[in-house]
Amino acid sequence: MKNKYPGKFITLEGTEGAGKSTNLKFIESWLAEQGIDVVVTREPGGTPISEAVREILLDKRYGEMTPETELLLMFAARNQHLQEKIIPALEAGKWVVSDRFTDASYAYQGAARGLPYGRILEIEQWVQQGFFPNLTFVFDLSIEEGMKRVKARGEADRFEEEQQDFFEKVRSAYLNRAKQAPQRYEVIDAGQPLVRVQEQVEQKLKQLCLAAGKKVVA
Amino acid sequence: MKNKYPGKFITLEGTEGAGKSTNLKFIESWLAEQGIDVVVTREPGGTPISEAVREILLDKRYGEMTPETELLLMFAARNQHLQEKIIPALEAGKWVVSDRFTDASYAYQGAARGLPYGRILEIEQWVQQGFFPNLTFVFDLSIEEGMKRVKARGEADRFEEEQQDFFEKVRSAYLNRAKQAPQRYEVIDAGQPLVRVQEQVEQKLKQLCLAAGKKVVA
Repeated sequence: MKNKYPGKFITLEGTEGAGKSTNLKFIESWLAEQGIDVVVTREPGGTPISEAVREILLDKRYGEMTPETELLLMFAARNQHLQEKIIPALEAGKWVVSDRFTDASYAYQGAARGLPYGRILEIEQWVQQGFFPNLTFVFDLSIEEGMKRVKARGEADRFEEEQQDFFEKVRSAYLNRAKQAPQRYEVIDAGQPLVRVQEQVEQKLKQLCLAAGKKVVA
Repeated sequence: MKNKYPGKFITLEGTEGAGKSTNLKFIESWLAEQGIDVVVTREPGGTPISEAVREILLDKRYGEMTPETELLLMFAARNQHLQEKIIPALEAGKWVVSDRFTDASYAYQGAARGLPYGRILEIEQWVQQGFFPNLTFVFDLSIEEGMKRVKARGEADRFEEEQQDFFEKVRSAYLNRAKQAPQRYEVIDAGQPLVRVQEQVEQKLKQLCLAAGKKVVA
């Protein structure tokens, strides 16, 4: 089961520095060119309550947060995001593009922090009740290259201060999840030149538009 | 199953204005007189992370928070509270006294805001895995009398601005839960003179001390 609403839900995932933000803007512009009403959002965040929870999650003073607490906060923010913003937009026929969603909980709190997948699945089902994105882009990049790009951006937050091993686990988790449900995921080699990356993104967006009965402007 | 640790866990519940704070201080002093090392805490809150979540929960600007989000935030705060503070104290043989705990989630998010008990039970089991307080005092007071006392205290927070009907549901939920597990709950008529209330509290604390093999100083 995916989503039963007229709008489509697209999520972007990847390790730090893999280019989610740049591609998010590209996707937003491309969909707008097709005449689609697009809502761009992010996780954790996207609503005032969820953004307040995000601040707690990213606050470096809270280093002693347990993985279970982190997961519950992520899903609290996600629940509000879904009920207040994502689902109403999809119901209204808008397309929603989110910088991260539940795959990130499996990759970060699951693979990297060691919470068993079964425990995450229970909370996911409690909150989402069978709702999933229509399409998830995984921007895949070596951790070394990603870290170089992050450092060039300035200050690191709590997640960005994790060690290389942590991010290798995150990267593997995304690739494994994509392998297990290839119809939902599009893995993109983010080490390619941006123009190649965006060709692949565009190709996939075209497919989704056509499948949704939308005409595609060349 | 209750708690497997050497320390005892006591919680205080009740509607607004029923005297939890006053009785919390009495309980703390009384246990200290018995030579028991006491940790006093509260929910939502009790750790820096949980207090930050409490601020979100009580912020009046967030009136549009869904009951599911509220529940997940409550249990995120509770999970951190348990793992960082309550369980380590109990393991060390300290007694922990908390102003509210999970019964409040059933009363407020369940009975009053309409979340099905089964949904709360799932999250409770996920977080607590069979852990419960040894003793829960329910301070029971008519809503009219409680509101009078709250108004005398000054500004109301988000919960305190709820209507009378809401608090009647909270009160009924506490009484029903106490009826279903009388061995864990002590319901106290908080409309009595304080000295009567505290006699009943003391009587119950004495029983718990004796059951724990503690001598009671008269």
